[in-house]
Amino acid sequence: MDRAKIRLFVDAPLGQGQSVDLNRDQAHYLFGVMRLKPGACVALFNGHEGEWTAEVAEAGKRAGRLVCLGQAAPQLDPPDLWLMFAPIKKARTDFIVEKAAEMGAARIVPVLTEYTNSERVRVDRLQAHAVEAAEQCGGTFVPEVAEPLTFDRLLEDWPEDRHIMFCDEGLAGASRGLAVHDGKWAILIGPEGGFSGRERERLRAMPNAHPVSLGPRILRADTAAVAALTLWQTTMGDW
Amino acid sequence: MDRAKIRLFVDAPLGQGQSVDLNRDQAHYLFGVMRLKPGACVALFNGHEGEWTAEVAEAGKRAGRLVCLGQAAPQLDPPDLWLMFAPIKKARTDFIVEKAAEMGAARIVPVLTEYTNSERVRVDRLQAHAVEAAEQCGGTFVPEVAEPLTFDRLLEDWPEDRHIMFCDEGLAGASRGLAVHDGKWAILIGPEGGFSGRERERLRAMPNAHPVSLGPRILRADTAAVAALTLWQTTMGDW
Repeated sequence: MDRAKIRLFVDAPLGQGQSVDLNRDQAHYLFGVMRLKPGACVALFNGHEGEWTAEVAEAGKRAGRLVCLGQAAPQLDPPDLWLMFAPIKKARTDFIVEKAAEMGAARIVPVLTEYTNSERVRVDRLQAHAVEAAEQCGGTFVPEVAEPLTFDRLLEDWPEDRHIMFCDEGLAGASRGLAVHDGKWAILIGPEGGFSGRERERLRAMPNAHPVSLGPRILRADTAAVAALTLWQTTMGDW
Repeated sequence: MDRAKIRLFVDAPLGQGQSVDLNRDQAHYLFGVMRLKPGACVALFNGHEGEWTAEVAEAGKRAGRLVCLGQAAPQLDPPDLWLMFAPIKKARTDFIVEKAAEMGAARIVPVLTEYTNSERVRVDRLQAHAVEAAEQCGGTFVPEVAEPLTFDRLLEDWPEDRHIMFCDEGLAGASRGLAVHDGKWAILIGPEGGFSGRERERLRAMPNAHPVSLGPRILRADTAAVAALTLWQTTMGDW
């Protein structure tokens, strides 16, 4: 059983001999775009049961059915890490979501800060991006994209047992290591203009919020997100 | 003297009272697009003399002249780090160049490996991207984008005193730290399909080439570039 090249996220149970119905978009993609025929193999994952090799049993223009032949890879969940970021321009916001899914964040939270130039955040579109990133990058987990929250609302209900790593431009140049704490974490990335003075003070006053410096140059928000994920994953995550 | 918001790279000497002639593109940008008038301030940098605040002395449609008022920031050179990468799709290649300029690489080298689907690499376009990234991100240094080299050619002339950090998918899961060595470095990022077996063996046989793992998930080449730059900058660079 070769490992299938086409990977598809499905919202359905997976297991030996399990039959999986395809929706219209999926059938169009597999049979219209990729031109698969009955007997062809596809890799399926649903976010919690690993990757399965499935065979095309019925192929139609608007529907189809696959049958699971066997598990190709076990489920790999990311660490309990949230990526929280202030939405920026569309392409760069898409990029942040793609990278968070690829690099192993468990949850993605758009945050509206004082300096956020918020275009409307379309959560469904961002969620589709996270699915696509997982499909393309061999992942078996898809992070949930949460509804946007304001900065104040986010911190009002902040769970005591979750640490926050935030990038503080005020620290630039002063190399300050990241404190290692086991358990739950979140990374918070500010908008292009940075956090406001009030926001920065509020973060600094939180006992479980930890500032880090990302070097002496000013990084774009999308770069900062990838750099912060790398730092966290190599220090406390599963890299 | 406020710090000017518009930043412009110029290929000219900068210094107190120095006059700087603008070319047609620069004049169009400053006076046609940004609508600056004589007396307005612009930040200039030339890659080796820091950032200078300059005042518009003459503004024309096709030409113009600025005069340097004073230095606003000292020159900040990156560490002696090269980023070498196999070109991928246009947008993602642009992205890698942008990030390398932003994160502090000194030189950018496109490398043609066995699995590189090389579209033609336009060095002048990539160089312009590096300039734009430096302009936007407050940098005073612009990395040079070198002419593309084949993998074999690159390693044939490889300087003995420069270490190579390369991402080895064969190490995935096995956490292997990055050996710290002072001095000159280069990061080598493979194409989407990874290095060929022969290339990987050649790298592994080099005494100053060091494999690193970027975690248990498969990363896109552009993500790997940013992650590797982060790892290097926090371990051995100026972050």
